[in-house]
Amino acid sequence: MKIALAQLNYHVGNFESNTAKIIDHIHQAEKLGADLIVFAELCVCGYPSRDFLEFNEYISLCEDAAQKIAAECRQIACIIGLPTVNTNPEGKDLNNSAYFIEQGQVKAIVNKALLPNYDIFDEYRYFEPSTTFKCIDFKGYRIALTICEDLWNTIENPLYITRPMDMLITEQPDVMINIAASPFAYNHDEERINILKDNASRYQLPLFYVNHVGAQTELIFDGGSLVFDRNGALIDELPYFAESVSYYQLDKQSAVVPMQPVTTRTKKDSDIAQIHQALILGIRDYFNKSGFKTATLGLSGGIDSAVVCALAAEALGPENVMAVLLPSRFSSDHSIKDAEDLVKNLDCKSELVPISGITEAFENTLKPQFNNLPFNIAEENIQSRSRAVVLMALCNKFGYILLNTSNKSEAAVGYGTLYGDMCGGISVIGDVYKTQVFELAKYLNRDREIIPINTIIKPPSAELRPNQKDTDSLPEYDILDPILAQYIEYRCSPAEIIKMGYDGDTVRRVLRLVNLAEHKRYQTPPILRVSPKAFGMGRRMPIVGKYLS
Amino acid sequence: MKIALAQLNYHVGNFESNTAKIIDHIHQAEKLGADLIVFAELCVCGYPSRDFLEFNEYISLCEDAAQKIAAECRQIACIIGLPTVNTNPEGKDLNNSAYFIEQGQVKAIVNKALLPNYDIFDEYRYFEPSTTFKCIDFKGYRIALTICEDLWNTIENPLYITRPMDMLITEQPDVMINIAASPFAYNHDEERINILKDNASRYQLPLFYVNHVGAQTELIFDGGSLVFDRNGALIDELPYFAESVSYYQLDKQSAVVPMQPVTTRTKKDSDIAQIHQALILGIRDYFNKSGFKTATLGLSGGIDSAVVCALAAEALGPENVMAVLLPSRFSSDHSIKDAEDLVKNLDCKSELVPISGITEAFENTLKPQFNNLPFNIAEENIQSRSRAVVLMALCNKFGYILLNTSNKSEAAVGYGTLYGDMCGGISVIGDVYKTQVFELAKYLNRDREIIPINTIIKPPSAELRPNQKDTDSLPEYDILDPILAQYIEYRCSPAEIIKMGYDGDTVRRVLRLVNLAEHKRYQTPPILRVSPKAFGMGRRMPIVGKYLS
Repeated sequence: MKIALAQLNYHVGNFESNTAKIIDHIHQAEKLGADLIVFAELCVCGYPSRDFLEFNEYISLCEDAAQKIAAECRQIACIIGLPTVNTNPEGKDLNNSAYFIEQGQVKAIVNKALLPNYDIFDEYRYFEPSTTFKCIDFKGYRIALTICEDLWNTIENPLYITRPMDMLITEQPDVMINIAASPFAYNHDEERINILKDNASRYQLPLFYVNHVGAQTELIFDGGSLVFDRNGALIDELPYFAESVSYYQLDKQSAVVPMQPVTTRTKKDSDIAQIHQALILGIRDYFNKSGFKTATLGLSGGIDSAVVCALAAEALGPENVMAVLLPSRFSSDHSIKDAEDLVKNLDCKSELVPISGITEAFENTLKPQFNNLPFNIAEENIQSRSRAVVLMALCNKFGYILLNTSNKSEAAVGYGTLYGDMCGGISVIGDVYKTQVFELAKYLNRDREIIPINTIIKPPSAELRPNQKDTDSLPEYDILDPILAQYIEYRCSPAEIIKMGYDGDTVRRVLRLVNLAEHKRYQTPPILRVSPKAFGMGRRMPIVGKYLS
Repeated sequence: MKIALAQLNYHVGNFESNTAKIIDHIHQAEKLGADLIVFAELCVCGYPSRDFLEFNEYISLCEDAAQKIAAECRQIACIIGLPTVNTNPEGKDLNNSAYFIEQGQVKAIVNKALLPNYDIFDEYRYFEPSTTFKCIDFKGYRIALTICEDLWNTIENPLYITRPMDMLITEQPDVMINIAASPFAYNHDEERINILKDNASRYQLPLFYVNHVGAQTELIFDGGSLVFDRNGALIDELPYFAESVSYYQLDKQSAVVPMQPVTTRTKKDSDIAQIHQALILGIRDYFNKSGFKTATLGLSGGIDSAVVCALAAEALGPENVMAVLLPSRFSSDHSIKDAEDLVKNLDCKSELVPISGITEAFENTLKPQFNNLPFNIAEENIQSRSRAVVLMALCNKFGYILLNTSNKSEAAVGYGTLYGDMCGGISVIGDVYKTQVFELAKYLNRDREIIPINTIIKPPSAELRPNQKDTDSLPEYDILDPILAQYIEYRCSPAEIIKMGYDGDTVRRVLRLVNLAEHKRYQTPPILRVSPKAFGMGRRMPIVGKYLS
């Protein structure tokens, strides 16, 4: 049997483009003599559809699309994923299903049993878990078809009380196929390989695994679909961050032979290299899928905006990036020079819009109220917010999308101005700690100087008052970031973090800042997710709460 | 047996105040001779704790609090709710539990079986559902203790495949007790009474039901705890929107006798009267629980800001409301007059901050870029955003919290400026359609004129360009609001809404506007929830999606 794996980029709710893409690949695979082509989980509607799934019409459109796809399966069978109506009146109204389509008909339906409902996942919000399990017979092979999480319960302290493959194995299948929607995090590719390898060797079956690729707003799917033999040896690993289709011959002894040169990585990319690729794809798909072309951002001369600008230029082309320099009376000369150097290095468009006339107007207008009270955070924030108003005015006039340039460290401790530098359509590096932003800058400079060296080596500053430095109010980033990671990624208590050797007052102060900033993060743009725990949908915190604050 | 029901206002994560309040009520009830006092679901930590529940330390703090509470139960037993560690290594790490505490010891633990995971609920994110059921024997009575949703599966098309009371009833209990965290929506009180009445008569048992009261950021708990006899007759209904403790005598024949005058409503309040009470509580608790005192808002002379100002003055006292008039060159004379009249009627504080000097500074600064292009939405938004910067500057200088004044109709269609009038710490009427805002204004004027009549009768306008009216770009609100409600609350398709008699082009245009505005709503403040489907945590939509847009 010849099996094709289609690792494709879908668009949530865009039935027209998703269906056309699936049918196109069915035709291609048919021409190349494949017996079966496998698409990813919920490919028909894209992932995650979120509460679109609560609209009956949306579910009908999925079924309509599936029928169109079925009609194109003549000499070839296919597996697609879509939400379907739960036929049992008890339980949730939907199932997360896979259709096995043969000769123009839906020959078998498999429903997902293990529904991820943590971090960014909300599947039990919509779907009833399956409690029945059955293999599919096709051309003399018995296929154990499962959906994503169904294979993820082999770990210690398992999240679920059942294990679908333990049921399916009793029917003596010849092969496992798993269709997935497994988003990127910089440590997730290895975890995925290990879990799937474990399944292949545990059940002594070859395993074909198909993932999504492409970004849906903040969620980035990295592809990296996998093929294992029955001993758990990795036969092939599809490319990361790119669409790809590959073909395999499966024989009666369950041996798997790739029909093209394999693309398995000889060496795993570094975390930073992966994050770089993920952010490029995230920016590109945000613009492509929302129908916008040009990004704008404020260039301060600092490292965050420089890195975001370089990523945007790579993702969209420098001609589609409008960098805006917005100096105030507190901006240092080197800041403007550093920003100009970056613009030159990237060859992107730029404008200079000094904001002192604007901030003076605010201060003059507010004189009766401010009544000679000393300069404080109010005047600092006026600068940051004036910049945001200018940038948004340019967006409104010229149809740009504003890129947010906040990093994860400052988003964590609330070191940013709401409606000021926290604005934007999408946050590019909001899941990248400041120390990682420095690494990213060095990575961007791997072939030539793009990020000006002075931007990398000078001490970080918001430049909202004379001689300000980030370290005036925050610990050094190489202290701050590990504390933040222990709290945010690993949910350690203050006592546990202090036990790791960090200063008690610093730890308590930092965690308090994090929890006090929830109200700010609630109103910030979606953040491209590259870590196992990003701010946004995957981290849901009370705002008016009192823990550690 | 004498049973006390304690309907109290907790604060998420504030173990100190929650524990003190629970212990205080145990002592009071003990003095009054109660055998058992019943507190609400998850009262120890407050509801919803959201991802605080993922911190092991948080769970330990819950257990510590429970042990402190247990030590105070000498002559009296109590029922409290808290998250506990799941002792089974398989499944989620936590249970949503009730402790039955007697003689200083946890005598029985009941775990919730039906975990709501829809709308604003995320319980399956944290908790493993119980699959075992056992009654509790206490002073010769057998108690069927369940937690909130456990009793909500009696409806047609049930959400769950099990029904806990069907198991518990086999042990022949004498009484049902249900501890709950059931948030307000204007139609929810009747639904709640019907479901619980159905349980009492179905199982032929008296039922004691204890709810939370008080707001946790956007979620407002309305109290209204209930007592039914074994025939399903309503014996008592505790007050809405207020803390309350009441006592009942339960005899061996399962008859229930209230030990104080009952507070059952003779007539249900109107939706608007309930919404009014909910919003007052929502504002008050937002400020109380976050430790702020003074609200500010921009007063335009229009109905939305007028209603929010009046609600804030009622909730916080007029001396704690700073209304700011921010006229531009497009503000009409009557707008300023109407705003001033409101300030007089309320006797709140006010400031006048004309913004024309600021908007001119923006336009002058942007002249090189705007290059004589015609006035459009860019200049309109500059006005709205300039007002936001002024209001936030006052917040930063004086420690105010900005109230957002957007209504649900405009939030729905994106008729508002991101980082402009969409700013604020909390949105007061973001779940109230414009037609309901008019009703609310009339309700606020029920005793005397608070909202100036001219504010109510003039045509709504954003006043961002000369002679602008909302109806220039939107249908009349009495057409728009029902279309929105059918789509948002009932998730109808365009075809279904058109079939109800609405114009096809209007319907398609409105729904498209709703779906195109997701990116704006993503960045708006938490919205006090008063309907069964509010924007925010209870409605999770793709941003870069393509359905109907």
